[in-house]
Amino acid sequence: MSEQQKILIIGGVAAGPKAAARARRRNPQAEITILERGGLTSYAGCGMPFFISGMIHDYKELYLTSYGVARDANYFGREKGVKLYTRTEATAIDRQNKVVKAKNLETGEEMEFPYDKLVLATGASPFVPPIEGVDLKGVHLLNHPDDSLKIRELVDTGNIEQAVVIGAGLIGMEGADALFNKMVEVTIVEMQDQVLPNMLDADMAQRLQRHMYDEGVDLFLGDKVLRIEGDEEGNVKGVVTEKNGFVECQLVIMASGVRPNVQLAADAGLEIGEARAIAVNEYMQTSDPDIYACGDCVENVHLISGKKVYTPMATYANRQGRVVGDNVTGGESTFKGVLGTGVAEVFEMNVGRTGLGEQQAKNLGYNVITAVSSGLDRTHYHARHGLVQFKIIADADSKRILGAQGIGKGDVVKRIDVVATAITFGATLEDLSNLDLGYAPPFSSPIDPVAHAVNVVRNKVDGLAETIKSQQLLEKLEDGEDLLLLDVRTAEQFAPKHFKDDRIMQVALGDLREKLEEIPRDKEIVTICPMGIRAYEAVRTLRGAGFENVKLLEGGLNMWPFDLEIKKK
Amino acid sequence: MSEQQKILIIGGVAAGPKAAARARRRNPQAEITILERGGLTSYAGCGMPFFISGMIHDYKELYLTSYGVARDANYFGREKGVKLYTRTEATAIDRQNKVVKAKNLETGEEMEFPYDKLVLATGASPFVPPIEGVDLKGVHLLNHPDDSLKIRELVDTGNIEQAVVIGAGLIGMEGADALFNKMVEVTIVEMQDQVLPNMLDADMAQRLQRHMYDEGVDLFLGDKVLRIEGDEEGNVKGVVTEKNGFVECQLVIMASGVRPNVQLAADAGLEIGEARAIAVNEYMQTSDPDIYACGDCVENVHLISGKKVYTPMATYANRQGRVVGDNVTGGESTFKGVLGTGVAEVFEMNVGRTGLGEQQAKNLGYNVITAVSSGLDRTHYHARHGLVQFKIIADADSKRILGAQGIGKGDVVKRIDVVATAITFGATLEDLSNLDLGYAPPFSSPIDPVAHAVNVVRNKVDGLAETIKSQQLLEKLEDGEDLLLLDVRTAEQFAPKHFKDDRIMQVALGDLREKLEEIPRDKEIVTICPMGIRAYEAVRTLRGAGFENVKLLEGGLNMWPFDLEIKKK
Repeated sequence: MSEQQKILIIGGVAAGPKAAARARRRNPQAEITILERGGLTSYAGCGMPFFISGMIHDYKELYLTSYGVARDANYFGREKGVKLYTRTEATAIDRQNKVVKAKNLETGEEMEFPYDKLVLATGASPFVPPIEGVDLKGVHLLNHPDDSLKIRELVDTGNIEQAVVIGAGLIGMEGADALFNKMVEVTIVEMQDQVLPNMLDADMAQRLQRHMYDEGVDLFLGDKVLRIEGDEEGNVKGVVTEKNGFVECQLVIMASGVRPNVQLAADAGLEIGEARAIAVNEYMQTSDPDIYACGDCVENVHLISGKKVYTPMATYANRQGRVVGDNVTGGESTFKGVLGTGVAEVFEMNVGRTGLGEQQAKNLGYNVITAVSSGLDRTHYHARHGLVQFKIIADADSKRILGAQGIGKGDVVKRIDVVATAITFGATLEDLSNLDLGYAPPFSSPIDPVAHAVNVVRNKVDGLAETIKSQQLLEKLEDGEDLLLLDVRTAEQFAPKHFKDDRIMQVALGDLREKLEEIPRDKEIVTICPMGIRAYEAVRTLRGAGFENVKLLEGGLNMWPFDLEIKKK
Repeated sequence: MSEQQKILIIGGVAAGPKAAARARRRNPQAEITILERGGLTSYAGCGMPFFISGMIHDYKELYLTSYGVARDANYFGREKGVKLYTRTEATAIDRQNKVVKAKNLETGEEMEFPYDKLVLATGASPFVPPIEGVDLKGVHLLNHPDDSLKIRELVDTGNIEQAVVIGAGLIGMEGADALFNKMVEVTIVEMQDQVLPNMLDADMAQRLQRHMYDEGVDLFLGDKVLRIEGDEEGNVKGVVTEKNGFVECQLVIMASGVRPNVQLAADAGLEIGEARAIAVNEYMQTSDPDIYACGDCVENVHLISGKKVYTPMATYANRQGRVVGDNVTGGESTFKGVLGTGVAEVFEMNVGRTGLGEQQAKNLGYNVITAVSSGLDRTHYHARHGLVQFKIIADADSKRILGAQGIGKGDVVKRIDVVATAITFGATLEDLSNLDLGYAPPFSSPIDPVAHAVNVVRNKVDGLAETIKSQQLLEKLEDGEDLLLLDVRTAEQFAPKHFKDDRIMQVALGDLREKLEEIPRDKEIVTICPMGIRAYEAVRTLRGAGFENVKLLEGGLNMWPFDLEIKKK
């Protein structure tokens, strides 16, 4: 490789600068240049909600290194030996002559940048729904630090009492959470009938929605914004939704997802993949071997399904940037694919997912088995303990884990990372429950909540535990089915909070063996306790005593997201 | 299998009750009996330090279920359908007739218990060092809840100003931490020359020791207690150590490790393994196929080395108990082995390890390569961020990860769990750095600290980064070698805290390219910054400019556990 080779990178936010820095460390002589359309580079897009909420005091924090240096052209030049052109848009790629045409957006000046290796890190752009009123004052995206600056300035005026967030994906939820923390009344409008539709299965989402309702967040699910209305001065005054009508607000955040920026690549004749993003191989090479692409503009391979997916995530951008930095300097690094792992802290709940969701797995033809379990994230006697709920999605035939989801005040993310690691290697249910994970009272239980969740699946597979999910039980109860809800807590624990329904019976687990005669043998029985642990014991006791139609409420009362007073249809 | 089969379990603390509960859930008809020598069963031994420190208010918490029921004979009988005999010691196993002889320790009554399947969960006993004074008032073990009760009562009198803890293993460290939290001055005496000798490599332990010194804990390492001295009333008044002489104290905790209780098994002719604990196969079967053993009395297979090890841990006891519960009721579950994963929170630092340590790996003949890296456990702009240091131990030939250790105020344990999971499946360096772990600002960085640590190893393997460890650098500096310490922070960052040595030079990373002429080319150069990140950039810049003898201080100043003022020999 020539020592003076020219590496040209289009895009200066995450993947691009990472590729540049890595390439520089591997090749001190190469001429490395970054072109960035915007004015800011290498900023912490994920930090925006934390700037709005005030956890980040100073706007500059969004583009400073951890040691306090702004990542601008001066920094790239002096610390990295990389030339950075900001406000410079690449307009065309001449692959024949290996030249990129660009324009300075301030001066209009046209420029040409020759390259030996070209890196496309053109990112993604927010999708703006085609509705009336998106240009009103007070209507913002949440895609660029400038957006967060405008939103924070607005909120800091003290004049924003209500806000509407359009879209309950990750960005919408984090934005809504930030506003909520600033004491703004928040309404979230989402076209799909659940929050975080790309992240959580419906049952897990319902758990989060229950919590959000309880906290006072308005959720309009399965609804859509028809138009945004303004006052005479052009300030937003409210939105009109299809189902819920007019909602007053002084601020609207549009968070309807992003689309990969592929035009430049497509115009140059590079292959665009089935997920509508730039197609790359595992070396992050496009259909032109001298052109690489990475970050939010490329599509990825899902490691479980093998399908192409579009999963724009900061962590992929960084890791792909490193791979590209290797490969444009003669390396042979690979990025094998993604599990779609995602985590977030929203409304003081930790949520996460990895791998396939339940419906996704069914659509792919797996013989899906799942279980949801409730538990504590560490020993109950440790002050910091919190509740966590995990859902394991597995293939009943191969016993392989396909995915996991978690939610709770406790440490969900650690367990999502463990499952993500395990399924990378094709772990089975048994593998996952046998992991030698760290245990001490401040961190876990002797049997980790994830191992516990896996054991619930195994018990179901082995026929030891038959379960019923909240949604199914609700339907049966509403349909007026004559079943028995057997709450196995003590009378004292039962008294303050339980199903308000005449089909309920309370028998403490410790009394169950001697009260078997009182329990009807002709009814379907659903055993109930807060976590599902005593309910499982009760199932085993009843089955052992010859009761045949006995199930436990999966995940316990803690996974019941509905009212406890049942309205029969 | 006969429905009335008799399952007899000796030991009622962790593994035994777990086996009983699992067996009961699988077989409702079996007669299940537990014999326990002590008065308490199924207690949370790991909770004792938290009871001493006061986090656990009520002694009863140590043996209550998470829903507040005491795990006594009544509980086992009513909730589990299991017969429990406390204060009942098994004295002999008649394997021929399948009968266990036992004695009631209160009444002296002799009993016989026939069995079809026998489970030995006889646990371990604390080792009491053979020194004078161990019977004095105020000298305690920390092995049974009763010990912690006595210690807490003593501390709560307000008369304990100084305490000596003998042994810096996990129990000693957690006990010392609990006393420290109660404002007791603590001295820890450890025969080996580091804390947590079975857990941490020396370099990681030094980091913890530095922190403990800074917090005001006295550490006598490589020292031993010769005798404990008492006053006329038989109360402890101090200990005499070999190196440090007399240390005044009103309380001594002996935490010199435990030994497996194997006498009963050995007397019955069962095989005792090379690790001096009961030998079992992966079904947890002893050399007699009708006798199983689990918990602190058995030896385990180390999953990396394949060697037999003695690793008494609560989590193994619980998981093995479950396996035994399966197998005594006709199942075929296995416990494949251990990684020796261990975690703890001591003196407000999180520490952990999994797999092999550096020396252990070398002794086993691996071509060991390691790296230590410093980093933040989440984004620097998130309020909860904390420093973490990870050490990765790998095999340079196969590139397989052999082990990892971590320490820091930040979230170490999550990463230890991830590595534990990865090495279970034989992960390589590349595998580990490519994991799709969850990223969001409250939880991690786009490149997780563990991936970062692994990348440091890879950079070393690839010859991109040559490093020097703190200990080696200290030796060179003390030997008066004429090297250059190149601190690449800014002058403002450098000013308050840096090496006090005439071999130091400060050049900010951003100025390095234009100041290359000022840097001597004939000296060995060690680049320095807090985390090692800028120091790595500096190495690459200098190497690119033709400097040949350049290394970075591995893990940065944050891994420097010594004084910054160097005393030349």
